[in-house]
Amino acid sequence: MRVRKRKGAQEHLENNPHYVILEPEDAKGHWKDVFGNDNPIHIEVGSGKGNFITGMALQNPDINYIGIDIQLSVLSYALDKVLASQLPNIRLLRVDGSSLTNYFEDGEIQLLYLNFSDPWPKSKHEKRRLTYRDFLDTYKQILPENGEIHFKTDNRGLFEYSLASFSQYGMLLKQVWLDLHASDFEKNVMTEYEAKFSSKGQVIYRVEAKF
Amino acid sequence: MRVRKRKGAQEHLENNPHYVILEPEDAKGHWKDVFGNDNPIHIEVGSGKGNFITGMALQNPDINYIGIDIQLSVLSYALDKVLASQLPNIRLLRVDGSSLTNYFEDGEIQLLYLNFSDPWPKSKHEKRRLTYRDFLDTYKQILPENGEIHFKTDNRGLFEYSLASFSQYGMLLKQVWLDLHASDFEKNVMTEYEAKFSSKGQVIYRVEAKF
Repeated sequence: MRVRKRKGAQEHLENNPHYVILEPEDAKGHWKDVFGNDNPIHIEVGSGKGNFITGMALQNPDINYIGIDIQLSVLSYALDKVLASQLPNIRLLRVDGSSLTNYFEDGEIQLLYLNFSDPWPKSKHEKRRLTYRDFLDTYKQILPENGEIHFKTDNRGLFEYSLASFSQYGMLLKQVWLDLHASDFEKNVMTEYEAKFSSKGQVIYRVEAKF
Repeated sequence: MRVRKRKGAQEHLENNPHYVILEPEDAKGHWKDVFGNDNPIHIEVGSGKGNFITGMALQNPDINYIGIDIQLSVLSYALDKVLASQLPNIRLLRVDGSSLTNYFEDGEIQLLYLNFSDPWPKSKHEKRRLTYRDFLDTYKQILPENGEIHFKTDNRGLFEYSLASFSQYGMLLKQVWLDLHASDFEKNVMTEYEAKFSSKGQVIYRVEAKF
């Protein structure tokens, strides 16, 4: 997600250390302490402006959510939503998706969400796609055995690529949706992108895949 | 594919024993003799009126094709096309998809096509779908190790189901197309259904999956 640079974004994040984990290396293996309970932890890699993660946290009070994005301004907008919600089961993290093993112990995460990730359509940028095999290595490590990735996107090319990437990595496709909004999938929490693109008639693809 | 019952269909097939294999049990393990050469053999299960199989046979003279359909009238229309083409590398077979191991030796087939198979949308009819696991058992047996199924359809529900079915069977998705006609896939041979539905703006899905 690209947004205009936001003035004061850095300070905004630093002023809210309860919600924004500023020294995440210290949290590795101790996320239960961060949340103050033993509830399962779900993360969204590339959480953008935070619509999905706050919606999920509201819908599922017994699950802890961590929104992860590397972009400063984007994360600061997500923080606005988190502050407005005042939910106890949500945190934000400004780190890179490829470095997650620095911040999470093996199996510390119960479920991983990818939503409307950057498609990086050029072949030479394949390695940047969040469903490229090197990222799957990382996700596999921090998830439990048979851990799952739930991924949705409006981008046909990225979805085609990701189905094959998951499968060729040895993951199982549990279920596939080729038009999420026309399906009977309930409890869907829309991202900003999703609301925008589906209102234009774009189909939304979704898959649940497990290691 | 449902077509009106055709008068004389049975006789039409019986009068053309060169193209229609009337005692296929005898051909099991001897399909190379039927074709008179050692070329690879590809089959289409549910070959309908034969557009695909004759188009493929024309495009690829070094591959032998067998079109398989259980419906008498449908197969008789396919025979019309085969007779018109006079191609040496095509045969027709009127048998059921679930009984293929009666007519093909283990590994005797190099590639299996499924095109626009009946979607059987009701859950209680899952076992009739040609991508149900019992059919995959059959296909696996007559294909070589790492043998492939190439499947296309316009039916979203069947395609969603089939991707998951292939994956859960342990097959690998080599490549997925979510809008075949908008892709750079070349040499596509259209079926009757495909021409009709794509002209109405319906997307065509395709997958290549291997055991």
